[in-house]
Amino acid sequence: MPDTGLELRSLISKSGTLELSLAKVAVPEPADDQVVIKVEATPINPSDLGLLLGPADMSSAKVSGSGDGVKVTAPVPPSTLTMLAARLDQSMPVGNEGAGTVVKAGASPAAQALLGKTVSTVGGAMYAQYRLRKASDCMPLPAGTTAAEGASWFVNPLTALGMTETMKREGHKALVHTAAASNLGQMLNKICLKDGIPLVNIVRSPEQAKLLRGIGAKYVVDSSTPGFHDDLVNALVETGATIAFDAIGGGKLASQILTAMEIAINKSAKEYSRYGSSIHKQVYIYGGLNTAPIELTRNYGQAWGVGGWLLTPFLQKIGREGQGPLRQRVVNELKTTFASHYTKTISLSEVLDPRNIAVYNKRATGEKFLINPNKA
Amino acid sequence: MPDTGLELRSLISKSGTLELSLAKVAVPEPADDQVVIKVEATPINPSDLGLLLGPADMSSAKVSGSGDGVKVTAPVPPSTLTMLAARLDQSMPVGNEGAGTVVKAGASPAAQALLGKTVSTVGGAMYAQYRLRKASDCMPLPAGTTAAEGASWFVNPLTALGMTETMKREGHKALVHTAAASNLGQMLNKICLKDGIPLVNIVRSPEQAKLLRGIGAKYVVDSSTPGFHDDLVNALVETGATIAFDAIGGGKLASQILTAMEIAINKSAKEYSRYGSSIHKQVYIYGGLNTAPIELTRNYGQAWGVGGWLLTPFLQKIGREGQGPLRQRVVNELKTTFASHYTKTISLSEVLDPRNIAVYNKRATGEKFLINPNKA
Repeated sequence: MPDTGLELRSLISKSGTLELSLAKVAVPEPADDQVVIKVEATPINPSDLGLLLGPADMSSAKVSGSGDGVKVTAPVPPSTLTMLAARLDQSMPVGNEGAGTVVKAGASPAAQALLGKTVSTVGGAMYAQYRLRKASDCMPLPAGTTAAEGASWFVNPLTALGMTETMKREGHKALVHTAAASNLGQMLNKICLKDGIPLVNIVRSPEQAKLLRGIGAKYVVDSSTPGFHDDLVNALVETGATIAFDAIGGGKLASQILTAMEIAINKSAKEYSRYGSSIHKQVYIYGGLNTAPIELTRNYGQAWGVGGWLLTPFLQKIGREGQGPLRQRVVNELKTTFASHYTKTISLSEVLDPRNIAVYNKRATGEKFLINPNKA
Repeated sequence: MPDTGLELRSLISKSGTLELSLAKVAVPEPADDQVVIKVEATPINPSDLGLLLGPADMSSAKVSGSGDGVKVTAPVPPSTLTMLAARLDQSMPVGNEGAGTVVKAGASPAAQALLGKTVSTVGGAMYAQYRLRKASDCMPLPAGTTAAEGASWFVNPLTALGMTETMKREGHKALVHTAAASNLGQMLNKICLKDGIPLVNIVRSPEQAKLLRGIGAKYVVDSSTPGFHDDLVNALVETGATIAFDAIGGGKLASQILTAMEIAINKSAKEYSRYGSSIHKQVYIYGGLNTAPIELTRNYGQAWGVGGWLLTPFLQKIGREGQGPLRQRVVNELKTTFASHYTKTISLSEVLDPRNIAVYNKRATGEKFLINPNKA
């Protein structure tokens, strides 16, 4: 085993420059309750890009050096620096989740039991060749499951389950999902089909609609067609969905969904309410595919809400007890419901290749990269 | 006592015309547990205007007839009719709250006890000369309190108390209020001063700022000045307010408030969070002074929410038990904390005078009309 390993770092300077580089760091010695994972698979999720690239203008990125000494720099708009105050001039490791082989283990029985095993973990800094973790923070993968198959075990599966769970906990009986042909969206369809939850999928092209119908989706509406609004209202009347999870954020879509929900509710209303229907309509925004402002045209009464939704606060809210069954379900259905599909597997230095950045930074539906930090 | 009384009616036809008129209706006979109130004071609140005028274009209003036979008609934009489906072609009585003298009472002791008393009530159809109510829905005013003093006992006082109550129940320690020099805003200042709650008042002119400072407001920021953003951030740092109640709705203000809250929170943050601060920031929109779309520029992480807030659902949520102390406080402080000020007292037919409509429909800060349906 080598003494050092590479770790991807993102730094935004006070003067407004993003710098991506690979740091050479010592392979750590585990304490009694710790293990060292040789990371073999870690995905690039949209939720990683905020830390990795920040608000930098990647179309103006410059590359210097080569191999492990490669560096990418790009300008960060000065207006955004205030919001980044707490990370400025700090070299930040990146990567939410991943999987690999336990190559060193501390003296405790729990740590020793993991030696040689393929495990998944979550907690940042996974874009690295070696990662030190507590044994209790590692999830051993079932026999026959590869690191690549277990790499995306956390963010997407728990986000999708978090959506149906939030739906139930907040008293709704069906849900709407946008950018619905994404990896996450396909997972959500599998969950909803399995659990009998009506799901209205909003997609942006006929190809995406076809893809979802192919995996059994019943309600698919295409926002690129002229009949979008009416199709959406009809699907909402049929399903009774009053909560939506929106990956797009900017523009008018959130407002259009609330309007369609209100119309669908009023179609079955018996009495006029001067303030609109009293049934609460909610759109949670969990992504930012469109970073333009959200535009809300309020023609849906007063019983509405729009807000941010994020996995971590949701998990904190439901606590260890609420999380247990969700995590167990992911492990049980890792090769079926929660299978991820990747376009390409790249090395750490390839993460810094502008041609790759241009692809994964598009956050395009269906494009998903997996990093193997130990790829030769 | 006459056999009939006048009652103001609002009707929107399927063909898209608003018609305001005065109906002549029989003065009802009370059942055992009912009373008849001769209504002497009932305010025109912004919350009444939605039912009274709907989305009609009042600049194109036409008047016909005169005296009690007066009729006002105005066009309603066809695009809004879908939302109004449940009220179309129905003659709707109007008026949320009011006060007057009990002139008839049913046989029950509770009803008889109210005979001759000045009482306040809430529940719609108050823009009428006589109103039938259950005795238990009437609140006798303390001796020496006039109908005019007790007319606005419900909507504004409970809305203002609902704001500080919501703030507490949702775990915030200070609040922001917009259009803060309104009748309601002045009440809120009195409540917050009395209860020691830090309140950030956002106003739209130096005159309004002066008015609020005159009644003891400590934090007043004026959105018409170039220093607005910085002043707001400073006030949020000092108060720690993370919830706002916004009467304006349309435009960028809600988003500006969330941005300023995030900056204020980050000023004291010790660690960078890639998703922005984890402290939830909330803007509740309870009015629509600006009916333009709300524009949300998300530079405040994921822990945020924007939504409608309305008195009735809030009261339902806290239940009778939660409401008791709030209602009692209003009665106790009717001439102090909860005193309302009116620009003008008008008759029912004067409500239909286009010159008056032009004034009360502006919803201008400081302009508030009181109706005396029995005004000679």
